[in-house]
Amino acid sequence: MSELKNDRFLRALLREPVDVTPVWMMRQAGRYLPEYRATRARAGSFMDLCTNPELACEVTLQPLERFPLDAAILFSDILTIPDAMGLGLYFSEGEGPRFERPVRTAADVAALGVPDPESNLRYVMDAVRLIRRELHGRVPLIGFSGSPWTLATYMVEGSSSKEYSKIKGMMFDQPALLHKLLDTTARSVTTYLNAQIAAGAQAVMVFDTWGGVLTPRDYREFSLRYMEQIVHGLQRESEGRRVPVILFTKGGGAWLEAMADTGCDALGVDWTTDLSDARARVGDRAALQGNMDPCVLYASPERIRAEVATILASYGHGSGHVFNLGHGIHQHVDPEHARAFVEAVHELSPQYHK
Amino acid sequence: MSELKNDRFLRALLREPVDVTPVWMMRQAGRYLPEYRATRARAGSFMDLCTNPELACEVTLQPLERFPLDAAILFSDILTIPDAMGLGLYFSEGEGPRFERPVRTAADVAALGVPDPESNLRYVMDAVRLIRRELHGRVPLIGFSGSPWTLATYMVEGSSSKEYSKIKGMMFDQPALLHKLLDTTARSVTTYLNAQIAAGAQAVMVFDTWGGVLTPRDYREFSLRYMEQIVHGLQRESEGRRVPVILFTKGGGAWLEAMADTGCDALGVDWTTDLSDARARVGDRAALQGNMDPCVLYASPERIRAEVATILASYGHGSGHVFNLGHGIHQHVDPEHARAFVEAVHELSPQYHK
Repeated sequence: MSELKNDRFLRALLREPVDVTPVWMMRQAGRYLPEYRATRARAGSFMDLCTNPELACEVTLQPLERFPLDAAILFSDILTIPDAMGLGLYFSEGEGPRFERPVRTAADVAALGVPDPESNLRYVMDAVRLIRRELHGRVPLIGFSGSPWTLATYMVEGSSSKEYSKIKGMMFDQPALLHKLLDTTARSVTTYLNAQIAAGAQAVMVFDTWGGVLTPRDYREFSLRYMEQIVHGLQRESEGRRVPVILFTKGGGAWLEAMADTGCDALGVDWTTDLSDARARVGDRAALQGNMDPCVLYASPERIRAEVATILASYGHGSGHVFNLGHGIHQHVDPEHARAFVEAVHELSPQYHK
Repeated sequence: MSELKNDRFLRALLREPVDVTPVWMMRQAGRYLPEYRATRARAGSFMDLCTNPELACEVTLQPLERFPLDAAILFSDILTIPDAMGLGLYFSEGEGPRFERPVRTAADVAALGVPDPESNLRYVMDAVRLIRRELHGRVPLIGFSGSPWTLATYMVEGSSSKEYSKIKGMMFDQPALLHKLLDTTARSVTTYLNAQIAAGAQAVMVFDTWGGVLTPRDYREFSLRYMEQIVHGLQRESEGRRVPVILFTKGGGAWLEAMADTGCDALGVDWTTDLSDARARVGDRAALQGNMDPCVLYASPERIRAEVATILASYGHGSGHVFNLGHGIHQHVDPEHARAFVEAVHELSPQYHK
């Protein structure tokens, strides 16, 4: 493997000194980029793009060609694991992801196994290997997975959901069954992320997109507990370097202390929590990643720059902050506004690292 | 007006002693009730139902005929104010509310006036008067409005939104224009709620459904500030009794202290915050209303009862708690489960009021 030329992303996640605050964007390889839309059109469906390592590599690298980002993130989907479990993932236009065979009964749960990452998830591992080769050590590569709770919501609901009535019905009336499903899913995520690390991922992130729909009690029991299981099962070192783990619960700003107690290295923070508050509460237990409202990218470059300045000041002096949006970049954002964002982080942050 | 026979809802909002914890449900007059669906079918469209005082009164009273609820809430929609401003509210099947003439420019904002509640919102005031008469003092009647920020999101977006790109674009790039819109809306809400109080509403609630999509800074500047303006402009006494004001920001659990500082009487709390934490933070500055996850109503009556017990214990001893769901009741809930919920609150709560 090529030597890493820019490691400030990994250093900031471990709260080691950096020259400037590193920055990347969730969903940075995506529809807001015309070159992504062109590759996607060539690929066919969204899943055709995910399952083709060459094209997944191509779109992963596209934002790095445009902007001075400090990390690349594997282009993939969080639902690859349930798909590899045999649930039959498909995308219906305008309605998001769906499963042909959702998980509803004890027999459905019992039938689920832990997928072998190098067999029916081989396309993901091949993409990781190819991206690492093509990166030539420019920046680190982030691997990722959905959290067990978040994956289970799709597996049980069978699609995106507004009310989560089916999985919550299972949670309230058959908690042991849901625990079994979450345990199988957590073991699958652990195996999957360890395979990504073995294939070359230099940091990993767990996206708990739907943990925020739970009560604090249910969050601890049905989401956080399984993210902790994953953190404890991960290979934390590779190629002679620490592999940082980032946990991100959207809407989980109230639970940052408990998330840090899992032993992860860093916490994703959405824009509904001030970084100054988050830092005061988490202390030196974890680095923080975030947290600009992605809608700020609809504003003028001057306004974007002002918001970056506010967030940098909110975090304050010293390492331990990876700049990011608080959620994925929206598809109608002008790429030049994304550039203004990335450049502002690099231009305005050196004063916080003196 | 008839003398009020059951005032425990009003007493709890003012943290005065009660015998049992009062309970009502957001959206208690709604689609989960077959009798509501029958009236709605007779009315025609949803707005035909809202604008017909006799039918609005009928559906307001329906849940009280079934369950021993401690309050009635006016059946109406939060978008009556922008409709009365001339924006042309309509409902397209499966897509929620829309406006024919959304507010986008300085000229659009300048054209908006404060609607006279007794002219084009007369149907709401007539409904309040009729409901009060038909209640015969059984329980108090709650009036309500959307918050200025929440109303403005619909007015600017023109419909429901996932990203809020248009109103946030205005917020980031034309904050003075948005402030003007919010001020006009806040004055309209104040006038509207005061008219509801004059017509017979015995408590009022402001629903800030979308305040939770803002950063803490933007929430204070663009949502909370205008709810405070409303609290200060309200007629707080009527018929010789205090008229309590409840503020509810969905997803605003982190901001309860600041909400209490507005001078309101009570705070709605959704299920993502434990009531014990909320009470410790708010202290004796405001009563709390909430906060069962409405999805618990999909579970068995035994499980519903257990959740009620947990939430009562979380709030603890003494007055100042109005039991409710953390959001509106879902349309597919079995009414018998709603009954189990209401009865459990009355049966399990006396021990906390000895």
